[in-house]
This record gives sequence, structure tokens and C-alpha cells, in this order.
Amino acid sequence: MAQVVYPKVAVIGCGLIGSSLIRAARAAGVVERIAVADASEAVRKRVAELALADTVTADPAEAVTDADLVVFAVPVLAMAEAAKAAAPGLKPGATVTDVGSVKASVAEALDGALPKSVFVVPGHPIAGTEQSGPDAGFAELFQNRWVILTPQRREDDPYLEAVQRLADFWTALGAHVERMDEAHHDLVLAVTSHLPHLIAYNIVGTAADLEEVTQAEVMKYSAGGFRDFTRIAASDPTMWRDIFLANRDAVLEILGRFTEDLQALSRAIRWGEGDKLFELFSRTRDIRRGVIAAGQETAAPDFGRDRSHT
Amino acid sequence: MAQVVYPKVAVIGCGLIGSSLIRAARAAGVVERIAVADASEAVRKRVAELALADTVTADPAEAVTDADLVVFAVPVLAMAEAAKAAAPGLKPGATVTDVGSVKASVAEALDGALPKSVFVVPGHPIAGTEQSGPDAGFAELFQNRWVILTPQRREDDPYLEAVQRLADFWTALGAHVERMDEAHHDLVLAVTSHLPHLIAYNIVGTAADLEEVTQAEVMKYSAGGFRDFTRIAASDPTMWRDIFLANRDAVLEILGRFTEDLQALSRAIRWGEGDKLFELFSRTRDIRRGVIAAGQETAAPDFGRDRSHT
Repeated sequence: MAQVVYPKVAVIGCGLIGSSLIRAARAAGVVERIAVADASEAVRKRVAELALADTVTADPAEAVTDADLVVFAVPVLAMAEAAKAAAPGLKPGATVTDVGSVKASVAEALDGALPKSVFVVPGHPIAGTEQSGPDAGFAELFQNRWVILTPQRREDDPYLEAVQRLADFWTALGAHVERMDEAHHDLVLAVTSHLPHLIAYNIVGTAADLEEVTQAEVMKYSAGGFRDFTRIAASDPTMWRDIFLANRDAVLEILGRFTEDLQALSRAIRWGEGDKLFELFSRTRDIRRGVIAAGQETAAPDFGRDRSHT
Repeated sequence: MAQVVYPKVAVIGCGLIGSSLIRAARAAGVVERIAVADASEAVRKRVAELALADTVTADPAEAVTDADLVVFAVPVLAMAEAAKAAAPGLKPGATVTDVGSVKASVAEALDGALPKSVFVVPGHPIAGTEQSGPDAGFAELFQNRWVILTPQRREDDPYLEAVQRLADFWTALGAHVERMDEAHHDLVLAVTSHLPHLIAYNIVGTAADLEEVTQAEVMKYSAGGFRDFTRIAASDPTMWRDIFLANRDAVLEILGRFTEDLQALSRAIRWGEGDKLFELFSRTRDIRRGVIAAGQETAAPDFGRDRSHT
């Protein structure tokens, strides 16, 4: 039996990530009691039906009472309000973290809303699927994925111990833990997650709006590449609206680079510069190999889907 | 036992698609003899080792001798030369097709290089993976995928019969067949395949060139969306260089729309217009559902990869 890391964990917002965290923590045997707070009645009902938590409530302050770890798993722009609502119930010495995809603005929101008696350690598991809600979660979601913690600039032992304990918790859930400056996190994620989502949403939108090509044709002939984009363009709209607004500067910076490169590529096509295209298309293969080597992707062709023949 | 559709099939260029076609045709029992021509000695060696064909040669004219169906499966800008080389060996009355991702320019190339005694029926199976070469092929590649034929504007019975026979052949391989005008094909594919590849190549290139974020970081934290793009950005560089050059006008037209939409999205982020973002992000979910309903995608989250828990 694994050692209990946090006797009581409170999860505020029980969607894909929140419910996966609960399942993973239970499976790892690192928690004893779980409390969930969620603003949605429908979600609370499902959490109860799925028996995910010992207590389910609409009130964050009630859920966090006596909790050793509090995890905010709501959309990033809802963090401040959730933290404010939870604050009166927090136990001094509790660790408070989150799972938001943007760290600078969330760190600021948590710091502003929470009492100094708790240890605030913002975090972000780089894991997910395009699905949402408590039913979409699963215990293996964090296996072999990275969790980035962006601790505050504090060097006192109790704080450092709280950070280490949170890292141990994520490790017990199967994840690898990295620590990073929140501004750097926001830039890295703008590249590896936010821009890809923006581009995917955009291309699917562009395809839907064409007059010369019908939506039915787009769907029928999507196996040529388009369907890969529809996956991430099916992600939760509220969550992603918040991410782009909360990480505006980094996203616009990276988007500017992307657009510049795309103009150069467009020009190479217009002028028939095949060697420039070939050079880029060869270079990008190496990145794919690196992603597979880093254990973040399956090497099976086509993501392994439709591989009934193997 | 299925009925033989073409006693002898010649495949010119034996990569992922060519070798999959051979495997699928053999599995379906619709061919008796297979001849392969390939310019690469390494490919010819593998084709022999894999026992994919009855005869393997470097000379297209030799391979097509006595063939009832000739399939050009080389990069689109190599079609004209391959057709010219094969022409002297063609049997009058043979059907000649191809599998190129661009149809207008290939149709013109084939028509210009081949004798009037054969039936030219350009075609394009909307199927593939990011892998290349004869080893990457598999018999089930075309199952439930669409094949678009772009017949010439001929209404004579022998030609119409040749088109129907080719459609029957693809159907026997598990595909659905659609007929289409080649210009419309090129526009549809610019949306559903060429633009997605261009965008994927571009974003992976942009990420690789950043100074503030290392390539190692890009790979480590790619599970947030980026890794999906690396898959199609690992596709064959020669094939894709040719596609963009051969379908230049349609690609630039669709790319123009995409860029326009991206500017609007960028502006919405800059000005904090959350409702515009939310509206787009909600709309794109429906397209995903349509792609799944059209049988062109798995409904499993995350493409079904990493789903050890199910």
C-alpha cells in the first residue's frame, strides 16, 4: 500500500482533469478523503453517481474545510472567484494548487485571493483529451505526462517542503514533475498547446465557412489530414476562451512568429521554390522523432487508430 | 472467391499507397498478376523481399506490358515522366489511373504523355499515414475511406465501362468511390488535406526555430496539442513539395481565407472579445461530430491512443 500524502484532498471543479486527479489519487492510495465542490448541479449529480468523492457541495469553503491539499480545477478566468469563495474555509498550512493552462495570471489571482497562512503552489499537468466533464476522466491520464509546478519566489523551509510534497503527490499519480518560472511556462505552453489549439479552431472554422466546398465534403474527405485538427478543435470552449484571454501576450507573440513563417511558406509556394519547401518538410520529421523518443507520443502510424491489421 | 477485376495490374512507384494497393488487391482476390516498377533500387529490393509482386523492374514500359490496369503511384510532379516512360509498353484498351493528391495537373500530364488507345481515369484515395515506403503499406488502408475519380469528359461506352470497372476495383478493396470534377477535387483537397499539412509543417517549423523555448521543451510538453501536428508534419517531403507546387492556386486561395480568419481571431484575443472566441470554439465541435458520424474518425478520446484503461 502506498503512503498517504494528503489525508484530505478538496477538488474545486470536477471536469476531465479534476475527476482524473481524483481517480488517479485513489488508485495510487495517496489520499484518504475527497471533497468536491462544483458550481454545476449536473456535475455534482454525476460526481455523486460515480461515487468520486466522500462529500459533494456547491460551496468551495465547505469542501476545503480541513483539507490538506486544495486543487482548483476550474477554467483559468474562474480561478480568482473560486479562490475567494474557498478562502474562509482553508486550514492554515494547507497546500493550494491548480491545474490551469496559464500560470502567471492564475498565480496572481490565487495569491490575491488566498490567506498568507496557506502554501500556494500553482501547477499544470500537460495532459488531457478533447472530452470534458466528470465522466471523461480516467486514472491513467497523467501516466508518463509532465506536470509543471511554478512555485512562488519563497525560500523558507515550510514552503519548500510543501512544494516537494506536491511534487511527490504528482509523482505517485504517474507523472514527471518539472519546476519552472511562470512566465517561461506561459511561453512554452503558448507554443506547445495554445497556438496548436488556436490554429486547429481556426482551420476548422475556415473550412466550415467556405461556400465552394460543403461541410459534408469536408467531413467525408477529412482523412487526408483535416480530421486530426478537428480533435483538438472539439475541446471545451469555455476553458479555451479563458486560456487565450489569460495568456494573451505570449499567444500573440508566438502567433506573430507563426504568421511570419506562414507568409514565407506562402511566398515559396507562389514562386515555386520547391527546395525551400523540401528543406522545411524534411526538418519537421526530426521533431516528430523527438516527440516519440520523449515518450509523449505513440510511434504507431496514424496514432494507432484503424490498425485492425496489426 | 471474389471475381478477378483486372488479370494483370502494374504499379509504378511502390511506396505506402502503391504497396497498400497491392496488398489490398491480393487480399480481395481481384488480381492475378502484379508487376511493379520503381526507380529506387532500395525499394525494388524490399518489394522483392516482401514478395509483393510477380515481377519487379526499374523500367515502367516493361512493368506495364500486358497490364489491364496501370496505377501511377509516384509523387505528382513525377507523373509526367513516369507516364512517358511507360507509354511504349501499354496495351491498347488498358485502364490507366493514378493515386495523386492533385488532379488537374496530373490529368493533364497523363493525357499529354499517354496514347489515345488507353483509358485514362485519374484517381485519388483519401487515405494514408505519415509513414512512407513499401514496408509501411497494409491491406486495410482503404477500408471505409473515399476514393475520388475524376474521369475525362468522354461519354463513349468503352470509356464509361472502364471508369465503372475501376470503381468496382476500389470498392472491392473496401473503399467508397465518388466521381468529381478535377478542379473541384483540387479545391476540396486543398481544404481537407493540403492546408492542414501546410499548417502542420509550419507550426512545427516555427516551434523548432524559437530561441526562448528549446526543442527539448517543445518535445517534452507536446502532449498539450502540439504532438498531433507533428504526425502529419512527418509525412513524405518529396510528395508534399510536389503537392503544393502542383496545386498552387487552390492552396494559396484557401490559405488566404485561413490567414484572414486567423487575423480576426488574433484581433479578438488582443481586444479581449471572449464571446467571439467562445462562439467559434463552440461551432467547431459540431464539425468533429460530423467527421465521426461520417465514419472517418474514431470517437475514442485522444484518437484512442494511451487508452490502456479501457
